[in-house]
Amino acid sequence: MNAVVIDSSSGVTLARDHIRDFYDSYYSTLDDVELESWPQFFTAECLYRITARENFERGFALGAIQAESRGMLIDRVTGLMRTQMYAPRYYRRFPGPLRIVEESGGGARVRHNLLIVETLVDEAPTIALCGTCHDLVVIDENILRFKERVVVYDSEMISNSLIYPA
Amino acid sequence: MNAVVIDSSSGVTLARDHIRDFYDSYYSTLDDVELESWPQFFTAECLYRITARENFERGFALGAIQAESRGMLIDRVTGLMRTQMYAPRYYRRFPGPLRIVEESGGGARVRHNLLIVETLVDEAPTIALCGTCHDLVVIDENILRFKERVVVYDSEMISNSLIYPA
Amino acid sequence: MNAVVIDSSSGVTLARDHIRDFYDSYYSTLDDVELESWPQFFTAECLYRITARENFERGFALGAIQAESRGMLIDRVTGLMRTQMYAPRYYRRFPGPLRIVEESGGGARVRHNLLIVETLVDEAPTIALCGTCHDLVVIDENILRFKERVVVYDSEMISNSLIYPA
Repeated sequence: MNAVVIDSSSGVTLARDHIRDFYDSYYSTLDDVELESWPQFFTAECLYRITARENFERGFALGAIQAESRGMLIDRVTGLMRTQMYAPRYYRRFPGPLRIVEESGGGARVRHNLLIVETLVDEAPTIALCGTCHDLVVIDENILRFKERVVVYDSEMISNSLIYPA
Repeated sequence: MNAVVIDSSSGVTLARDHIRDFYDSYYSTLDDVELESWPQFFTAECLYRITARENFERGFALGAIQAESRGMLIDRVTGLMRTQMYAPRYYRRFPGPLRIVEESGGGARVRHNLLIVETLVDEAPTIALCGTCHDLVVIDENILRFKERVVVYDSEMISNSLIYPA
Repeated sequence: MNAVVIDSSSGVTLARDHIRDFYDSYYSTLDDVELESWPQFFTAECLYRITARENFERGFALGAIQAESRGMLIDRVTGLMRTQMYAPRYYRRFPGPLRIVEESGGGARVRHNLLIVETLVDEAPTIALCGTCHDLVVIDENILRFKERVVVYDSEMISNSLIYPA
């Protein structure tokens, strides 16, 4: 994890470049399957949710995957590392342009599209997930972290094998 | 529509950031299917064309879809909203890096690649369009608008269902 | 080829914008199949390699495609232009965000994801390559060039027809 360190004494709002660096670090950590670093991108209390577009638009809180603390994310990763480390498949994330839709003291709501491409070792790559992210990025212990990350995918079903974090 | 407002008194050429914001707003308006806002991204007289690469390279003016005024775009949207509002499919746009290939007083020619991913509710996402955009972005009534937007797709056929704007 | 000219007298490290412009020029040259310009993006002595992830992670030097000088790249292009000019297929490149992972005097190590979409004239577009690029970009004769370009794709096989440069 390459933490994006913020000099909080300056009191400025988050710069575009810092947010861009934060996402670059986040997605490359996931692409490289550095699962043990993943929970550190979230605040101790947080919302992490992956849900279908239909549920999201109807305001349903239920999601395919949900966690409400860094501890729950650590549990999830521990399970994954035990069972899936040698799975012969790769995921690579292609985020669209980042849009800062709202900024307030120390936090920014960021939206962007996300394409996750899945490659099984002997097959051609396919699209595992196409959707949009509704995130809240904050300064926490002098680095940037997600306070909220909600990934809304367009289909009702996602790839059964998409068990790695998005 | 989040119009990108330009202070025309400054007389400067268009900044990269303004153009980026303009496209972010354009593509998210389409992704969110806010069709009634779409024509406002174009000048009253404009060129909107979606055409196959083969036609484009041979200089054929004929395109699969063409409009020459905002009024024609409004007509198109009105028809779409009447017939297609509940279609159970989604399109999401992934633009490549924006390249400003020419700048003159108040206008910029912008090229970039475009990938449109289509998701039917019960199926895995697929690529509906892969191509490149040849646009002319101008300042019009103090905001940015397309004076020209020509989307050139690589195949001879595009998804039959790609009836929404690109 | 739109060379990115650097004023080397300034002695500054490479700016993000210069590197972005360099990649924009590189990928659009390839998308437009301007093969004769392609070798000029590399230093006279260079490393160009396209290899499978498994080989890369095990440290195998062998790659599916490899060249160690601009001369070898010119040879490759000459062969391609003789045999493949009228092939009815197109490739379009979608790079992910550029990450500068290391900078030193006059050079930058740049990593980014890469998606190459292939379109055969009568078929829907598919993903020909999904992978990541490990590049070394340097100032050479006052312009930016690749000293190293290593493209690591996720599957063991790439599209048989991916004979054009990446």
